[in-house]
Amino acid sequence: MPATDIRIAVDCMGGDVGLPVTIPAAVAFAQRNADTRFLLAGDPAAIEAQLQASQGPTRDWYEILPASEVVLMDDSVEVALRRKKDSSMRIAVQAVKDGRADACISAGNTGAWMAISRYVLKTLDGIDRPAIATSIPNVKGGATTMLDLGANVDCTAQHLLQFAIMGSALASIVDHREQPTLGLLNIGEEVIKGNEVVKQAAELLRASGLNFHGNVEGDDICKGTVDVIVCDGFVGNVVLKSIEGVARMIATMLRGEFTRDAWSMATGLLAKPALNRLRDRVDNRRYNGAALLGLRGIVIKSHGSADAYAFGWALQRAHEAVQNGLLDGTTRAIDNLRQSLRDAAAAGDIPNDLSDPAT
Amino acid sequence: MPATDIRIAVDCMGGDVGLPVTIPAAVAFAQRNADTRFLLAGDPAAIEAQLQASQGPTRDWYEILPASEVVLMDDSVEVALRRKKDSSMRIAVQAVKDGRADACISAGNTGAWMAISRYVLKTLDGIDRPAIATSIPNVKGGATTMLDLGANVDCTAQHLLQFAIMGSALASIVDHREQPTLGLLNIGEEVIKGNEVVKQAAELLRASGLNFHGNVEGDDICKGTVDVIVCDGFVGNVVLKSIEGVARMIATMLRGEFTRDAWSMATGLLAKPALNRLRDRVDNRRYNGAALLGLRGIVIKSHGSADAYAFGWALQRAHEAVQNGLLDGTTRAIDNLRQSLRDAAAAGDIPNDLSDPAT
Repeated sequence: MPATDIRIAVDCMGGDVGLPVTIPAAVAFAQRNADTRFLLAGDPAAIEAQLQASQGPTRDWYEILPASEVVLMDDSVEVALRRKKDSSMRIAVQAVKDGRADACISAGNTGAWMAISRYVLKTLDGIDRPAIATSIPNVKGGATTMLDLGANVDCTAQHLLQFAIMGSALASIVDHREQPTLGLLNIGEEVIKGNEVVKQAAELLRASGLNFHGNVEGDDICKGTVDVIVCDGFVGNVVLKSIEGVARMIATMLRGEFTRDAWSMATGLLAKPALNRLRDRVDNRRYNGAALLGLRGIVIKSHGSADAYAFGWALQRAHEAVQNGLLDGTTRAIDNLRQSLRDAAAAGDIPNDLSDPAT
Repeated sequence: MPATDIRIAVDCMGGDVGLPVTIPAAVAFAQRNADTRFLLAGDPAAIEAQLQASQGPTRDWYEILPASEVVLMDDSVEVALRRKKDSSMRIAVQAVKDGRADACISAGNTGAWMAISRYVLKTLDGIDRPAIATSIPNVKGGATTMLDLGANVDCTAQHLLQFAIMGSALASIVDHREQPTLGLLNIGEEVIKGNEVVKQAAELLRASGLNFHGNVEGDDICKGTVDVIVCDGFVGNVVLKSIEGVARMIATMLRGEFTRDAWSMATGLLAKPALNRLRDRVDNRRYNGAALLGLRGIVIKSHGSADAYAFGWALQRAHEAVQNGLLDGTTRAIDNLRQSLRDAAAAGDIPNDLSDPAT
């Protein structure tokens, strides 16, 4: 039996469903991955009850971290951070901080999860603001890494540069893309090509030593033009949800067209294998598990509405991030970036006051 | 025979293709609509040659407006506006300004089209900045009107309010929605709910007398939660292109799944009617024809890559806007808005300095 060397702390109570999703997903994951050990944060009795219902591996695969409180989906950041100091979220992050876990995961309230993670773990040197990154399937059969998805609404050029370095590190370390290509989300032929922040960010990115492809537009996300796309959190959040919305609409329409009369239903039955393959390719449950980047620890966010299958994919993201050394790799990438910017400032390519990524 | 009372000026030279798209589309439209007369702006000889190839109606349905220059797709606004004063774009807009046409349309360079239209026609009282609006199909079987789509990158709360009034007028007058519902595009549960501009815009919208539903998120576009969605031009442009990109990706994948082996191809053939119906429902050619709102004249923008079928839909948009009195209706709506804001300021609901929509 391999050593149980990857330890994941799970906020078992978070999400729209909570325990009936998180526990079965952890059990199934532990069965498939003999190297993984779970720290289950939450109400001990409720966790034990849920564990009874699932058949876990015979090995010693988990430990319970008691937590007396639960952050609700509509709790404010204030409440989550100041009033619920014994929440399952807080306990899961604390396990990473204390070195007892290598990664932590929650399907709860995104704002609270980000705030608690940031408060407990702090940001990496050179990073002002953590960002949320996820993968979006593209027509090339791969996935495009996109960030920020909602942690930062108002961004400076330097923040976008920080997102770029973190996103590139994620794509190269976890998705094994050598020198991932990087695009800056912008608008096209229309009246004004981008605002000031985006223009300045492009300048910094050209000097960054990253594999900067240039500006990309909205349709480049699904085209897979670049490996990583950077934008501010307002744009990223709206775009991600728009994409999910249109995919859902097309799925609904497709279902509608294949159920509207007997002939359509018959052909739909025959076409089922092809339609199922399509469904699997765009199934966003397979892309569950956004990474909260820029923190001194690996933190993963699952969709609140995830089922056990989707939550399993988010656990997989946590596992891969630990296995591939995301944290050390990101730290090294930031050091390299700083050197590139110092060189660029010395060569007069960028202003001196932009020579450090942190503001 | 009905009176030919709707006059549309067409930039015949604009777009990726130009004459072979614009002329056949105008011919076909004139055949279907006996009330429409065209003013064809461009190179007279080239227009005549193209007209020879198409069988127009027997009635006197067109007039040629000679123009010696063409704005190219990559011409800067500067070049289009200052150096090409006899362009087909300029001549088409001028026809509206001179009262010879009721609307004008181009498939050319968006930035140039907007700049020329604004320069020649000027904005309506109470409107600082024109905006670009289009319809996006939603799962309810209708369409969501969205603006701005790229004319304005940096917006204040008052600009968003102006977009709201113009978009509502468009939806109520052209799409015949009584008191169209209005949403402000924002981000959801994440860390910070919207930036300052969006928060202030919500306050103004609540005082505006418009049918303001509140904040909406990206997935509400295709859900059809509201009739009109307002956002700044950067976000709108990126979202529109993202949506087009994901729809195209799913169409490509669908084609791929139905051609990968003999069985799939056979079922694909049987399923063709259902698949074609789906294609028609999401065919963005049917939604071609964005409106440039806030100008003292009706100005329509067709996709640059439109074929004659798509350009015909854009002509239809122009026709409907004239027929339903979009311009007068918008002017009345702005007057009503001003009254509402004055009342709200008098009642202390909004600050005094926000009581006029124009900044």
